Amino acid sequence: MTDTTWMYENFEPAGSAIGYRVTRKLDEVQSPFQKIEIYESTDWGNLMLIDGAMMLTTRDNFLYHEMMSHPALFTHADPKQVVIIGGGDCGTLREVLRHPGVEKAVQCDIDEQVTRMAEKYFPELCESNGDSRAQLLFDDGIAYMANCAPSSVDIVIVDSTDPVGPAEGLFNRAFYESCFRALKDDGILVQQSESPLVLLDLIREMRGEMRKAGFNAFQTLPFPQPCYPTGWWSCTLARKHGDDGFGFREVDARDKAFATKYYSADTHKGAATLPPFVAAALAE
Amino acid sequence: MTDTTWMYENFEPAGSAIGYRVTRKLDEVQSPFQKIEIYESTDWGNLMLIDGAMMLTTRDNFLYHEMMSHPALFTHADPKQVVIIGGGDCGTLREVLRHPGVEKAVQCDIDEQVTRMAEKYFPELCESNGDSRAQLLFDDGIAYMANCAPSSVDIVIVDSTDPVGPAEGLFNRAFYESCFRALKDDGILVQQSESPLVLLDLIREMRGEMRKAGFNAFQTLPFPQPCYPTGWWSCTLARKHGDDGFGFREVDARDKAFATKYYSADTHKGAATLPPFVAAALAE
Repeated sequence: MTDTTWMYENFEPAGSAIGYRVTRKLDEVQSPFQKIEIYESTDWGNLMLIDGAMMLTTRDNFLYHEMMSHPALFTHADPKQVVIIGGGDCGTLREVLRHPGVEKAVQCDIDEQVTRMAEKYFPELCESNGDSRAQLLFDDGIAYMANCAPSSVDIVIVDSTDPVGPAEGLFNRAFYESCFRALKDDGILVQQSESPLVLLDLIREMRGEMRKAGFNAFQTLPFPQPCYPTGWWSCTLARKHGDDGFGFREVDARDKAFATKYYSADTHKGAATLPPFVAAALAE
Repeated sequence: MTDTTWMYENFEPAGSAIGYRVTRKLDEVQSPFQKIEIYESTDWGNLMLIDGAMMLTTRDNFLYHEMMSHPALFTHADPKQVVIIGGGDCGTLREVLRHPGVEKAVQCDIDEQVTRMAEKYFPELCESNGDSRAQLLFDDGIAYMANCAPSSVDIVIVDSTDPVGPAEGLFNRAFYESCFRALKDDGILVQQSESPLVLLDLIREMRGEMRKAGFNAFQTLPFPQPCYPTGWWSCTLARKHGDDGFGFREVDARDKAFATKYYSADTHKGAATLPPFVAAALAE
């Protein structure tokens, strides 16, 4: 019998915790930016923690990666140029590249060590890293977006850690202004937006900053994500024009040539209809 | 500053845990059936634990109680006679009684102490206990269903703890046969059916036992529930005839005269379209 221990992450802003039964620590590296740890668990495959916060598990990361990519890509009429800020585990990149129409996907994560650890402990997430359309940069995402050619990008995906530490600068007006400038007129910005149960204030603030940067229409999509606080998470889409009634290419989503585990045209539609208490809070 | 401690519930079957930051224990009682504890938390209001397992929090119980009641009641054409097995915290009863067409709602929980604790620490859940349509019994739910007059009930809601201990007998063919007999021809059985991410086997087994008891059509509805393992939970509806394409009274749900926080005609529709991996597992 293997010795096991329970490992917990206390999420201070919400007063709640998530934990896993682990068998051993597989690796640890202190990068110039953060501490990355890999554990082996009894039921969830491998776990990656950054500065003590759970980032992903082998078992449930598909929820997050599918929902960070496919809703935005099926909302855009014809996404060709995609930029991922953060996303060093490469799972979002893999999902983006499932869309045959995508011509180029740049992933810009400040911390190369995240990708190195993903290659070793989550190889399935990195299986598209060699795709000729993929470009992996290890650089400052804020600077990357600031230097992007204007109106050159169809979709910007901000796949970041929580808005503290290295990721703090990815949740404010200045960064969103860079995204706005880099996006084409019909471009879409999508960002992970924390728990719709306990962090509605954060989603409201994020939308406020996006609005100041020029974005005019917003859509928040909730989805389950057991390894994040409360087990219920969200992404928020923003675009320059139109209203909050985001449609999407439903027929294309239904007829897509690749398999997904959580995303479907139906789950997309379901996520787009917010529960009354979330809708009311975001309308304030 | 108040002293706080973190309290965790290790969920052995899934190798994951949920925790809360608590300020103090408010109460504890050992009933003839189980140990009930009440804690005060920093962010989630009061917590009720039964034999160490989190049952409800002030903050997030609306998710569970709304989803255990309204989907079934809006699926039935005209529910008048409702039986709740378990449900001693009275939150499901309160939601059922919001439907003006309901003529009688019997709540049969084996443990009176659960209701006494709810009255004291979750009074808002008990606000309909004095409704003239409500009948609170403290008795064995298995015996109650076995003795129910045949074809007398429109909806049976099994609002139980996990299928171990006192609730074990609520997850098998014998119990479901009693429910089948008590239900009218168009009656609906609904039961909490654990996590659709990690406990798909349990949902399959439950459906199998229901089928052996005569039920012919099934619908599993997932919903977020932070205080239960993985934060993603489900209920399963069963009825005697028809196929798995459950419709519901969408217009009535849209025009309902009472407020809900999570449930709506749209969230009902959203929950009814299962993510591909859940649909595939249940089709096996």
